[in-house]
Amino acid sequence: MSVIFPEGREFEFVAIGRLCIDLNANEINRPMEQTMTFTKYVGGSPANITIGMSRLGRKTAFIGKIADDQMGRFIHGYLTREGIDTRNVVTDKTGAVTGLAFTEIKSPTDCSILMYRDNAADLKLSPTEVSEELIASSRMLLVSGTALAASPSREAALLALDYARKHGTVVVLDIDYRPYTWKSPEETAAYCNLAAEKSDIIVGTREEFDQMERFERNPDRSDRYTAEKWFGCKAGIVIIKHGKEGSIAYTKDGGEHRARSFPAKVVKTFGAGDSYAAGFLHGLLSGWTIERSMEFGSAAACIVISSHSCSDAMPTETQVKDYIERCERGEITAG
Amino acid sequence: MSVIFPEGREFEFVAIGRLCIDLNANEINRPMEQTMTFTKYVGGSPANITIGMSRLGRKTAFIGKIADDQMGRFIHGYLTREGIDTRNVVTDKTGAVTGLAFTEIKSPTDCSILMYRDNAADLKLSPTEVSEELIASSRMLLVSGTALAASPSREAALLALDYARKHGTVVVLDIDYRPYTWKSPEETAAYCNLAAEKSDIIVGTREEFDQMERFERNPDRSDRYTAEKWFGCKAGIVIIKHGKEGSIAYTKDGGEHRARSFPAKVVKTFGAGDSYAAGFLHGLLSGWTIERSMEFGSAAACIVISSHSCSDAMPTETQVKDYIERCERGEITAG
Amino acid sequence: MSVIFPEGREFEFVAIGRLCIDLNANEINRPMEQTMTFTKYVGGSPANITIGMSRLGRKTAFIGKIADDQMGRFIHGYLTREGIDTRNVVTDKTGAVTGLAFTEIKSPTDCSILMYRDNAADLKLSPTEVSEELIASSRMLLVSGTALAASPSREAALLALDYARKHGTVVVLDIDYRPYTWKSPEETAAYCNLAAEKSDIIVGTREEFDQMERFERNPDRSDRYTAEKWFGCKAGIVIIKHGKEGSIAYTKDGGEHRARSFPAKVVKTFGAGDSYAAGFLHGLLSGWTIERSMEFGSAAACIVISSHSCSDAMPTETQVKDYIERCERGEITAG
Amino acid sequence: MSVIFPEGREFEFVAIGRLCIDLNANEINRPMEQTMTFTKYVGGSPANITIGMSRLGRKTAFIGKIADDQMGRFIHGYLTREGIDTRNVVTDKTGAVTGLAFTEIKSPTDCSILMYRDNAADLKLSPTEVSEELIASSRMLLVSGTALAASPSREAALLALDYARKHGTVVVLDIDYRPYTWKSPEETAAYCNLAAEKSDIIVGTREEFDQMERFERNPDRSDRYTAEKWFGCKAGIVIIKHGKEGSIAYTKDGGEHRARSFPAKVVKTFGAGDSYAAGFLHGLLSGWTIERSMEFGSAAACIVISSHSCSDAMPTETQVKDYIERCERGEITAG
Repeated sequence: MSVIFPEGREFEFVAIGRLCIDLNANEINRPMEQTMTFTKYVGGSPANITIGMSRLGRKTAFIGKIADDQMGRFIHGYLTREGIDTRNVVTDKTGAVTGLAFTEIKSPTDCSILMYRDNAADLKLSPTEVSEELIASSRMLLVSGTALAASPSREAALLALDYARKHGTVVVLDIDYRPYTWKSPEETAAYCNLAAEKSDIIVGTREEFDQMERFERNPDRSDRYTAEKWFGCKAGIVIIKHGKEGSIAYTKDGGEHRARSFPAKVVKTFGAGDSYAAGFLHGLLSGWTIERSMEFGSAAACIVISSHSCSDAMPTETQVKDYIERCERGEITAG
Repeated sequence: MSVIFPEGREFEFVAIGRLCIDLNANEINRPMEQTMTFTKYVGGSPANITIGMSRLGRKTAFIGKIADDQMGRFIHGYLTREGIDTRNVVTDKTGAVTGLAFTEIKSPTDCSILMYRDNAADLKLSPTEVSEELIASSRMLLVSGTALAASPSREAALLALDYARKHGTVVVLDIDYRPYTWKSPEETAAYCNLAAEKSDIIVGTREEFDQMERFERNPDRSDRYTAEKWFGCKAGIVIIKHGKEGSIAYTKDGGEHRARSFPAKVVKTFGAGDSYAAGFLHGLLSGWTIERSMEFGSAAACIVISSHSCSDAMPTETQVKDYIERCERGEITAG
Repeated sequence: MSVIFPEGREFEFVAIGRLCIDLNANEINRPMEQTMTFTKYVGGSPANITIGMSRLGRKTAFIGKIADDQMGRFIHGYLTREGIDTRNVVTDKTGAVTGLAFTEIKSPTDCSILMYRDNAADLKLSPTEVSEELIASSRMLLVSGTALAASPSREAALLALDYARKHGTVVVLDIDYRPYTWKSPEETAAYCNLAAEKSDIIVGTREEFDQMERFERNPDRSDRYTAEKWFGCKAGIVIIKHGKEGSIAYTKDGGEHRARSFPAKVVKTFGAGDSYAAGFLHGLLSGWTIERSMEFGSAAACIVISSHSCSDAMPTETQVKDYIERCERGEITAG
Repeated sequence: MSVIFPEGREFEFVAIGRLCIDLNANEINRPMEQTMTFTKYVGGSPANITIGMSRLGRKTAFIGKIADDQMGRFIHGYLTREGIDTRNVVTDKTGAVTGLAFTEIKSPTDCSILMYRDNAADLKLSPTEVSEELIASSRMLLVSGTALAASPSREAALLALDYARKHGTVVVLDIDYRPYTWKSPEETAAYCNLAAEKSDIIVGTREEFDQMERFERNPDRSDRYTAEKWFGCKAGIVIIKHGKEGSIAYTKDGGEHRARSFPAKVVKTFGAGDSYAAGFLHGLLSGWTIERSMEFGSAAACIVISSHSCSDAMPTETQVKDYIERCERGEITAG
């Protein structure tokens, strides 16, 4: 195995980073100017993945910071109801607000997000608020790149990485680049690289890896070059996403894995990566092969993109298996 | 008359200040944590008043700044459709966002607002973006206190006051204190006082006037003391609101005016002040007495608080007159 | 008289604003790159003028804020030793530093200043730290334009102006424009104009008045237009400096006053304006004519520009009179 | 050898970080309040060490940023005259100023510094301004901890570390903790640790290492524990300074080295660490033993603390050898 998970831990999965609110357009297939009502969901990539893992039956926890307002309390209540341990979800006391993401769905393939990230509570998480004990009690720590976008959340995430290394907790880095908050592309590259050096599993798009290589020479944008660099540090698995052409999982033993994809009646593209990540990591924890884990992730993603929401649509294992079976029976076709 | 409006101007009313988005809870009479959907409206006190004036048949314009995003374009489109001149509504190019106000309606009398004011586009309006010509072409300029809450909007509003004085445009100051953006109570007092010194009509709650008097001695919180101070500057009318006990309009000639109130089936309290202001100023422009203008404002306010929205519920003159008549006929009772 | 000073006050002069340190090049007539040693003096225009007034025998006080460090303590000690009342010189507790001004004297006519104004203690003075009682006990309040350059010092200075108006204390505004700290020319114009509206005596260069008129039409840069504008507010005397061509004092009664100048062996130009101001204001307080006051100011300025320092070189009345007499005897010639 | 320097490089030493100005009290043995004149020197720990290395005959270069003013030009001229390559000393264009350090020498053992670090040019160095080629052409890169104190200098220094690793340039980290600019102790720990992980030689005081271990358990403050941790990363030599009790150099092979000390007629303590570092690194480059290198550093430090300045007093090899010989002959005694 490219990555070995420690045994005998209280939690199977803990994530650190963004907790925010999605405000999804109810009237879709039009510009947001013409959308009059929005539905509220818990959002943020690491929140979505954690909810996904919990739905898949995993024992999960979250390390993050919420605003001291109605939005923050809604997030806390939702996570709790999903069975996620929130002992390390702390409440900001400085007047920060909950990050927002208004979604615009002009068409299934033309989606965008209007972000509110100024003074966001999640970026106020400080190193002293990261529980070493919780990380030591988890088999896996997921770090989202957005947690690195500003101080003190940046230092909190870097400290979480050190705790994970110290206690042998497997680290997954989801680069999750968002062009907000970051001050410059050089800053983004600097901190994503620092986190990647300390990660066992790294997941990102080709464009995200390009950005991290801005001070290097990889003119052909070679996946193999990229993967080998991180295998030279701590990584065992590097997944590089190529959009419609699918994802490739590179493993330290030289492997290169692709999974088959499934048809879906796409409503929007948001949340595909998060549900894929949850499905894939669930597979690894289950001891499945890389291919089977990727396939499971792909099916989970199909379910989410066929739905109106992200977090709320995260499927159970039964739902994913059922989706795969229905695809195999030809009951689901792209639309 | 306590205030004389100049004649022969292209516009009857121009406002400067906040343009934002209200996201009103669809499921009401509960805490916002339990509200799942929100409806989008144009918001911000000066925007509401301008929409109200336009609905009442007045020729209006707006001086403000909007974000370069879907929310900003929605605001621009809405104002234009309402017949408001937007030649001086400029678009921010620095990445500012549209201010948001999520409303929470726990009960008709227990309402609150969750504000997003960080990096708000309206506060980026700069002095060079204020049209002297537009102010010179208007009979009245309304300045909202929130425009004074941060630079460069603060200097833009102060310059607008100078242009108004230079050209004899009547200035209305709506104090509209919001505890966001301001850095200290002393700062609030300083700039509200500077604006009040240059205003012909000043509208605020007793609490707002108290705040402006923090460096003075008015221990009895005397309305008369407050009004006289501003009559010593430029004001002709000072309206002091006492919540449920009603408003009193003080005039420079020593007058003290109260208007009768009307019953209403209250949904929420938001927007009462804005519709009152629109109705009252419409009355003054119509040459009505202070009492009749106040009465008209009160009825306009009743219509808005009986409705789900603020801007969208602003009534026409026919609707207000109809409301008063129905009250007189006993067809409307409080509820 | 264009300006009447109140009688029976404890202090004859109080200034508000900048207290800083001058570091004057010991090796002069060369670029600062080649200067190896510097001498420390108390500096800042209002500090210099106050020291000047004290040397001229006036009972003075200062309203300002100093850093909690050796530089701050040096300033406090120096003012105290000069007989200036420092009860309203407060000490910053936020880690601010003392503003610095390194002087470069390439030649008597080619002088420049390298300023350190980031996080300067004097700009941290807040409205609650301004003593109304002290202003009420003074015949005259001098406000320096640099006090308006940033918050909260800006609001503190504006409040001082209100206290002065309330208690009939004569206000002198020394525009003293410095292109540091200010965020934009529009901001500078806005606040200098607000302060000038409330001042009895306004002193500035033609360029400073031009800057304040950026939103007006005075295409000929007419001094008379400028002066009349402020006479329309509160001013009784407006002094406009035209560099080598001398200064003109305009008075509300239509007067236009120029004073003769004196020869001097110029070392540097720094401090000329401050010593002129001290001499002129001393003359007004003495009940002298405008001309005689200006002449006295000119002679005081000659003494300072013939010396290495500013504050330390401020003359006594005897020294100024002696200088004038020596000039009249032809003992001093330019050089 | 614990550390092997690459051969065949154009430069023997390149430093990245702080370039500033020391203003040293001329009148010493008194509080700074009583010091009236100051002498200007180039300062900043990495600048001092580089000047020291250059004086010791090493081919050196500097990576840094200077203000676009007289102070910046003085620094550039001084470095150039010392034979230091300044091709990577760039000039700020944002209005930053040169950092200042006023020294106060109350007694030889009671010295302090008054720092001006707001808006300092050296902290504006950005990653794109770091020459990979220059680092690739150097045998050794010295990083000062103060370069990590703020962005973008922080990212620039971290990138320099990556370039050094890529090209096999030996990295020396001088922790050089200064309680300015850093926002929190946690932030300091985070970035000093990240830099230490990538360094071959780490130099700091026991207190500095304590600070870096705030998230660890080293209750006995064990030097051995500290050193072993970094040997587990990349380090070959860890020097821990214990003030008067001397320094200990730990080496990866288990060695623990102390050097004898020399007497000195101490004027002040500033600059001791910088001259020690220059002397020690010169010894390592010369292929001397750790002990001999430490001894040479100690003697260099004695010369600097016996003098009024830091940078200007950095000795040549002849001067250091002469000092050691004079000590051995008993010609120098403590005073």
